[in-house]
Amino acid sequence: MAKLPVSPLAPPRFPDLPEIGGVRFATVAAGVRYADRTDVMLAELSPGTSVAGVFTRSATRAAPVLDCQEKIGRGSDDGAAIIVNSGNANAFTGGRGQESVARVTGGVAERLGLPPERVFSASTGVIGEPLPDERITARLDDLKDGLTATGMEEAARAIMTTDTFAKGATTRCEVGGKTMTIAGIAKGSGMIAPDMATMLVYIFTDAAISQPALQSMLAELNHSTFNAITVDSDTSTSDTLMVAATGASGAAAITDPASADAAPFREAMGRVMLDLAHQVVRDGEGATKFVEVTVTGARSEGDARKVGFAIANSPLVKTAIAGEDPNWGRIVMAVGKSGAEADRDRLSIRFGDILVAENGWVAPSYSEEAAAAYMTQPELAIGVDLGLGEAAATVWTCDLTHGYIDINADYRS
Amino acid sequence: MAKLPVSPLAPPRFPDLPEIGGVRFATVAAGVRYADRTDVMLAELSPGTSVAGVFTRSATRAAPVLDCQEKIGRGSDDGAAIIVNSGNANAFTGGRGQESVARVTGGVAERLGLPPERVFSASTGVIGEPLPDERITARLDDLKDGLTATGMEEAARAIMTTDTFAKGATTRCEVGGKTMTIAGIAKGSGMIAPDMATMLVYIFTDAAISQPALQSMLAELNHSTFNAITVDSDTSTSDTLMVAATGASGAAAITDPASADAAPFREAMGRVMLDLAHQVVRDGEGATKFVEVTVTGARSEGDARKVGFAIANSPLVKTAIAGEDPNWGRIVMAVGKSGAEADRDRLSIRFGDILVAENGWVAPSYSEEAAAAYMTQPELAIGVDLGLGEAAATVWTCDLTHGYIDINADYRS
Repeated sequence: MAKLPVSPLAPPRFPDLPEIGGVRFATVAAGVRYADRTDVMLAELSPGTSVAGVFTRSATRAAPVLDCQEKIGRGSDDGAAIIVNSGNANAFTGGRGQESVARVTGGVAERLGLPPERVFSASTGVIGEPLPDERITARLDDLKDGLTATGMEEAARAIMTTDTFAKGATTRCEVGGKTMTIAGIAKGSGMIAPDMATMLVYIFTDAAISQPALQSMLAELNHSTFNAITVDSDTSTSDTLMVAATGASGAAAITDPASADAAPFREAMGRVMLDLAHQVVRDGEGATKFVEVTVTGARSEGDARKVGFAIANSPLVKTAIAGEDPNWGRIVMAVGKSGAEADRDRLSIRFGDILVAENGWVAPSYSEEAAAAYMTQPELAIGVDLGLGEAAATVWTCDLTHGYIDINADYRS
Repeated sequence: MAKLPVSPLAPPRFPDLPEIGGVRFATVAAGVRYADRTDVMLAELSPGTSVAGVFTRSATRAAPVLDCQEKIGRGSDDGAAIIVNSGNANAFTGGRGQESVARVTGGVAERLGLPPERVFSASTGVIGEPLPDERITARLDDLKDGLTATGMEEAARAIMTTDTFAKGATTRCEVGGKTMTIAGIAKGSGMIAPDMATMLVYIFTDAAISQPALQSMLAELNHSTFNAITVDSDTSTSDTLMVAATGASGAAAITDPASADAAPFREAMGRVMLDLAHQVVRDGEGATKFVEVTVTGARSEGDARKVGFAIANSPLVKTAIAGEDPNWGRIVMAVGKSGAEADRDRLSIRFGDILVAENGWVAPSYSEEAAAAYMTQPELAIGVDLGLGEAAATVWTCDLTHGYIDINADYRS
């Protein structure tokens, strides 16, 4: 497949990611599948690092995901490591898949002097082909020798598959006079295809946080960030989101996610996660529009999300957006099919600031020309008020274009 | 929008539909929206006809749907009528929508000497624009004058919107030496778009069946026919499926849907419904492949359907099929995300007779070349066995192509 052009929705450039105390990175070109590019990244985490993670809920999870889920959350003050390859997902590879994971993580553990249960892995790429793990283990010494505190951008590039740009984000926060830094990388461009468009996210911070507190915050923030985006409604067998907190900032340890000290960190980590989640949508396969769907006035947050995702996943809504057509009838349709409680005559719909429909019919002030002009913008906001209650939710998606068909109808050839 | 080419999956020709005793049809070109074509059909049903119906479950149902649901199932020995227009869906038109329905159905009732509650209507076309019902009521005398027993094919043509071919099906069955005839028409090409691709189905028979028995059979057969197809997972605000049984065959009345007499009729009606449902898929917007997905070995029929629809609705599966790519990894992905109970290591996957994967990995006998050759056929069968139980389900879909984007990204312009 030819190299894809960079998404028109990409940020202007990769951010300058700061060093995070206690984290070092290395990458190599191991030739797992691709030629002439890096395809393995290793992150080494200092002793005492808390590692939290959330994973795909697919019933056909890949071997590395099963391994991570087994290992995550065990108390340990040992160092840790994360190793990720692109090119092969090691998914649907039977018992051999587990053996490959054991060889790769065991090899890393040996080189870095870690217990094997502190080495986490991920693989992203083609499904159903055995992982040529010997190509990775042959390069573990090189990875160890290459470890550097400044390698996070290279790590972001090594895990790309169909991504058209590398994804990174960073921010800082202060607690009790101490500055804590958070930086993360992500890959993903279909939401989230099983082949090479799996979403992988790794976030690093020098904050000091107990593993249970970190896990709790991660799960909560995930709900409104990575679990609030969709490109094509498909779910990878390998989706992985991990956060590592090294404690190198010297700030006091956060052990209660509900404490006052936790609040600035939670807010900052949420910002990094939302930034990365938006970048995944901006790299949605074939995307030409970035779309925020906000649903208000729902009876429950669950209903608001149902309506939001019904709109964001509707092929008819997404193709209308691609065609810059203010086809609000398709929004009505998506609300209707969502399964959420809705009342046609209380529903109102907005495109940006333009009131489109209310009281069960098109708004008297509505101008199709103004709406059509609005739809030509690359970033769109769709607002739906159900008029039934106080609950709300926001989700993000992109349009469905010929580019999506191009990429996915001919992916493996 | 330019006229679309006829789907490559269309049947070779429209079937010869027999006359059904007790049913007459008429059509006119009322200019609701289209020029130079018929756009209203009227069906007159003789006294004693049982009328059953099932409708979209959308929370934003169109005015005619709400009216039909209000009227259906009331006991009556009066005659009845069905009037349908294309070009305008009379959906999301507020209180005016209900008034339009009342004027149209009331006008028909007056012309044909029927109680208004025995006149059923449907509208299919653009959402959110007021129905110019005066264009329809102005032609009711012409419709009445034009009623003929042979007009069913013309009726099928009058209700088309983005359909690329008219859809009809017929069969006969015998009970106690009496022959009963069933014939039906349908329209629909997106599944089921809110604009002009709503699915409407009308089936007529000279069998004698009580309304409750007919309603019960219809609901049951609908589950495995029209509710087992999907083009794009979208649901119309206007989907309507009605069956009218006139009793003109002189056969004894069926009052118990579980009786021995009901069985041949049920089987025949199911055949007509499945034929029409398949034709809707064959006219799926942009479709180039007709795909049957059969799921076996599930713990429950609900689980089997979940897996079937997860596969049939997956944009990644559908684009792979469009690309003639035997990308079975995407089937694994869809099984995993379906929410049904599944065990990666018990799963097996077939393309036609080709065993692709089993025991959690690619089958030893699998040949990518053979699978790629299979995928070039216009009609494909995907088989998934979950290896967990005895339940099964079959659903039908089509591929997702550039044609779908063409039709839907620029529909209203």
